[in-house]
Amino acid sequence: MHPSTVSRALDPARRGRIGEPVVRRILEAAERLGYHPDTVAASLRSGRSNLVGIIVPDIANPVFSPIISGLESVLSERGYALIVADPQPQRSGDSDIIQRLVARRVDGLVLANVALHDDTVERCVSWQVPVVLVNRAEAEARVPSVVSDDVAGMRLAVAHLLELGHRHILHLAGPQTISTGSLRRRGFVEAMSAAGLAPVDDDIEEAEAFTRTGGHAAALRLLARRPQATAVVAANDLLALGVYEALREMGRRCPEDLSVIGHNDMPLVDLVDPPLSTIRISHREMGEQTGELLLKLIKDVHGEVSHVVTAPLLVVRRSTQPPPVPR
Amino acid sequence: MHPSTVSRALDPARRGRIGEPVVRRILEAAERLGYHPDTVAASLRSGRSNLVGIIVPDIANPVFSPIISGLESVLSERGYALIVADPQPQRSGDSDIIQRLVARRVDGLVLANVALHDDTVERCVSWQVPVVLVNRAEAEARVPSVVSDDVAGMRLAVAHLLELGHRHILHLAGPQTISTGSLRRRGFVEAMSAAGLAPVDDDIEEAEAFTRTGGHAAALRLLARRPQATAVVAANDLLALGVYEALREMGRRCPEDLSVIGHNDMPLVDLVDPPLSTIRISHREMGEQTGELLLKLIKDVHGEVSHVVTAPLLVVRRSTQPPPVPR
Repeated sequence: MHPSTVSRALDPARRGRIGEPVVRRILEAAERLGYHPDTVAASLRSGRSNLVGIIVPDIANPVFSPIISGLESVLSERGYALIVADPQPQRSGDSDIIQRLVARRVDGLVLANVALHDDTVERCVSWQVPVVLVNRAEAEARVPSVVSDDVAGMRLAVAHLLELGHRHILHLAGPQTISTGSLRRRGFVEAMSAAGLAPVDDDIEEAEAFTRTGGHAAALRLLARRPQATAVVAANDLLALGVYEALREMGRRCPEDLSVIGHNDMPLVDLVDPPLSTIRISHREMGEQTGELLLKLIKDVHGEVSHVVTAPLLVVRRSTQPPPVPR
Repeated sequence: MHPSTVSRALDPARRGRIGEPVVRRILEAAERLGYHPDTVAASLRSGRSNLVGIIVPDIANPVFSPIISGLESVLSERGYALIVADPQPQRSGDSDIIQRLVARRVDGLVLANVALHDDTVERCVSWQVPVVLVNRAEAEARVPSVVSDDVAGMRLAVAHLLELGHRHILHLAGPQTISTGSLRRRGFVEAMSAAGLAPVDDDIEEAEAFTRTGGHAAALRLLARRPQATAVVAANDLLALGVYEALREMGRRCPEDLSVIGHNDMPLVDLVDPPLSTIRISHREMGEQTGELLLKLIKDVHGEVSHVVTAPLLVVRRSTQPPPVPR
């Protein structure tokens, strides 16, 4: 066989010109001989590592794992490998992780953990590392992002409860330092105000974190303060499940005594008791769109800064029903 | 400042000899000047990439995400970054992914997706890439692995049901091509046989995949064939939730008509209706132990091949109760 045939067969970009059986024979022989394409050497020539990093607040969180999965699928299809990093506050700061990834010459970064005001983004910008935000956005919107329309989602949740006849509706809010917590709270206040039911401060309680335990503790405070309320809009599903636990402890029933609606439609909330009404966000699709945006940015770092906002969907299950008739 | 002081301050291994305030000042100045340690250049000198790859069948599966999380935490503490890859069968084979990771000169690989007989392991061995298996083991046990004691887990599940008074117990098995499916089936048969209740083939049905839909379809077949049975041991929690769905469709109740027990204790099964009795496996801890084994192997590729087997735990919730009194 002519050396140039072998060389072509080993190059995915050029092997189309050679017959399929020949390519297969050459690849099999290469494998037997222990030949591997050397990505590291190739990356030194091209200046590209074909590595992308994603920083998530918690890999095992059911919101972030489908984002990672969607992102990985788009990236690996184009020959990129995905490094997943989970900064653990007790161990070291975000900044170290970013620096370590930059030191590996990643071609781009995805941040799933930014706060509304976050100097991480600024550092990436100043280092000229292509970066895309996902799920959480920053206040300034300097870099591309992929988020769900949090305000619209809350409008859907509130409209659903109003239609069922609820008037005294509470909000279990997420942390106000991150966009999902802050925008969902704003969406709640706007939707209630538009219906002439502007909430007062006491109608809203902020959870310390987007977790079941955070939701449980905040729900106990909120429901003790507002026993007459007939519905709670939680800023995410885990908080809603915390409300379930609080209700059980207080001997109150959902939905008979209190309707509860979540946000995210994470796996299994259709099987909890009662099945949770919620706002569906497609996190996997958000991961895929993040991959597309990042690949565009890697190709042209001075391209347009686009922001993708996905539309949420109301999913009605059994945790919401008309309010109890006053006795 | 003397250049050698700066050089020491920038090297994590040597900075201990210099005072903390000096180190901080030098690091801050380096950051201002846009200095980053160049991991790629360092890796060319050392021959180490400080990259590790993990291959999982599904990143978003609640069994694998805590394994990834535990592994990442151990690795990043020692300066390794973790590449996560999810081979999608419709796109390309496993073998391509392994080859692509080897081409990136990963220092080691974790396989969470091996079948009982899997040539992936052989290829890694022949390429002398340090490799550790997690969650699923292969039949030959050539490389280190971290798995739960699947046979012991099934013994716990069967003993619990026997103690409640069940005699006619069925098994909803996982795919027999992977170790968790095969060992859990064996554990079920052994535990039942030891109690003098050796199951026949018709008492066992194999699901096509470890998913809710797989469990649902297999449960419909199994329960139609064996309507008098009073309990089902499912090979994992998702299969058990599939049994829940099948029961609902058939108008039968859990646990009044049929007790159901799962395996894994994945997040949220304590909140489903009814809360699921199951066998608890600490997947996060398995991920951490996998990291430790792999780091040892990277240091000494000819070291001992150790197999870590973690002990499972019975968690009793409300999906299991004594069998109904025959009418």
